[in-house]
Amino acid sequence: MSEVNRVWRLRKRPAGEISDDVLSFEEESLPEPGEGEFLFRLNYLSLDPTNRIWMSDVAQYMPPVALHAHMRGVVCGTVVRSHHPDFAEGAIVSGVGVWADYQIGTPQAVSLMGDTGPFPVVDNFSTFAIVGPTAYFGLLDIGKPKAGETVVVSAAAGGVGSIAGQIAKIKGCRVVGITGSDEKCAWVRDELGFDAAINYRTEDVPSALAAACPAGIDLYFDNVGGEILDVCLKRMNLYGRIVSCGLISQLNATEPVPGPYNYPMIVMQRLRVEGFIILDFLHRYPEAIAALGQWIAEGKIQVRTQIVDGLENALQSLKKLYTGANTGKLIIRVEDV
Amino acid sequence: MSEVNRVWRLRKRPAGEISDDVLSFEEESLPEPGEGEFLFRLNYLSLDPTNRIWMSDVAQYMPPVALHAHMRGVVCGTVVRSHHPDFAEGAIVSGVGVWADYQIGTPQAVSLMGDTGPFPVVDNFSTFAIVGPTAYFGLLDIGKPKAGETVVVSAAAGGVGSIAGQIAKIKGCRVVGITGSDEKCAWVRDELGFDAAINYRTEDVPSALAAACPAGIDLYFDNVGGEILDVCLKRMNLYGRIVSCGLISQLNATEPVPGPYNYPMIVMQRLRVEGFIILDFLHRYPEAIAALGQWIAEGKIQVRTQIVDGLENALQSLKKLYTGANTGKLIIRVEDV
Repeated sequence: MSEVNRVWRLRKRPAGEISDDVLSFEEESLPEPGEGEFLFRLNYLSLDPTNRIWMSDVAQYMPPVALHAHMRGVVCGTVVRSHHPDFAEGAIVSGVGVWADYQIGTPQAVSLMGDTGPFPVVDNFSTFAIVGPTAYFGLLDIGKPKAGETVVVSAAAGGVGSIAGQIAKIKGCRVVGITGSDEKCAWVRDELGFDAAINYRTEDVPSALAAACPAGIDLYFDNVGGEILDVCLKRMNLYGRIVSCGLISQLNATEPVPGPYNYPMIVMQRLRVEGFIILDFLHRYPEAIAALGQWIAEGKIQVRTQIVDGLENALQSLKKLYTGANTGKLIIRVEDV
Repeated sequence: MSEVNRVWRLRKRPAGEISDDVLSFEEESLPEPGEGEFLFRLNYLSLDPTNRIWMSDVAQYMPPVALHAHMRGVVCGTVVRSHHPDFAEGAIVSGVGVWADYQIGTPQAVSLMGDTGPFPVVDNFSTFAIVGPTAYFGLLDIGKPKAGETVVVSAAAGGVGSIAGQIAKIKGCRVVGITGSDEKCAWVRDELGFDAAINYRTEDVPSALAAACPAGIDLYFDNVGGEILDVCLKRMNLYGRIVSCGLISQLNATEPVPGPYNYPMIVMQRLRVEGFIILDFLHRYPEAIAALGQWIAEGKIQVRTQIVDGLENALQSLKKLYTGANTGKLIIRVEDV
């Protein structure tokens, strides 16, 4: 075991696009687990749009990361020293941790991964730690799709969007994805089975959406906020639902971002707009993992993970999330397990 | 029975504040009811914020009034000639009609008022035709208040807001009203029993709201949209609900109105924002009327109606709605019944 711990610390709050100096990559000594704690070594680090929120001192669903503290992340690792009877050396854990090779774990922050069945640990982590359950509960519990309805998913080639769209297909919906490249459009349409895909960078979204949704939109799974939300609002059907899952289009904004100009459609069409955070569904993870696992095994859901090697590349990789440079779920691999 | 019918026709679509030339007051001959129809004489005309929406060619929940057609309104009248067995001469009807002394009624558009119990027809119409059921279903079915929660109501001295706030008090909530004058604040606080009231014209709303809602806001009954909505969003508690009932602050806008800048709070606080239109609850009116009638009889709900005499004053009176010049429910009286 190394005596040196590589860690990322938050050095300043981002303003606009994440700059290279918001985090610093440093070396320090290993932390020592206290009573009831354990030390684990990082195997995989999940990079997620919400990381940008955690860096910022804005209203959010958890306290922001303190300045100069270790950067927070969703992690998967292996226990290397333990003062807790349930977390033996060699056990695989995942949960909320920090961007560091070695870190202290507690039962409150991480849990045992347990039997991953047919899935390698990396797939289990990349699909089931965040994106799969987020898509599952967001679409089904919040969105409540019905067979025959039209579902639109933004950031459709992202980790959450690609799975949400596929679940909607399983539920018998017409599914339209909005993505940022022709390659992504082709992937969600030709590989994942979406009924249509729109490249928002090259197409006129209002007219493309009208063409792709001749019967209007019943459910919009919103990962992006901003202008795409506004366009979708305008085409919502009576009693439509908007699942507010994310706001990635506006996370890097430096000025206040206006809400949707078509907000009155919420009244006119009797819409329900509902936000959710996956943390609220932790107690129901087994349900989501069982369902998703079966769909994956049956070939009904395809998942794509984009793996970048090296903790040192975490910051540069994270930045790609906000420019749409990745497809599928993005994770950092430190050491395979 | 007069041979001359006084009618209001829509002559142009409003741009900004309603100007005197959007409607014209004209005289024409009486319409003749066809088979299955009846002619009724107007007793009372309800003036409502939504009238401005009906005048406009914007996305809405009913077709806008056609240019040069009679202005649409919610009406109460007396049948004077009938070709329908269920609507005898002398019967009192209410429903959707037009701004005219005499008009054709059908069972699809209006219904028999029936026994009004202890309430005079005018009170029955002013309270139960729109504002009472709107407050009842909006607050209870959409908002789902729980005892002990903090409920904020905007346009709190208006027809809907004043009743919604009183129902919330009956349900054991802390109720804060936002109004546009000290007199209205005094009315909702001292007469209606709201726990606090804020004059948005003279007070700093963010700090006043913070002071009035020390435990945050669980339910915002939104009649106004715009800036007040934004301020409320910022103080919403986890799992808070926003009932989108109206948008009166922005109905007269001439430029696109941005949605709330604090829209991201929907995700962060897992809010549910839900719009509704009272038309969807017509089949449940008896439930609302029974409950409201009992609360009124018990003195738990006070209603105020502002009556303006003369159909010729309808346009000038309607304009007052958008400047907050009225308190309670505003109706035009043509002839008492």
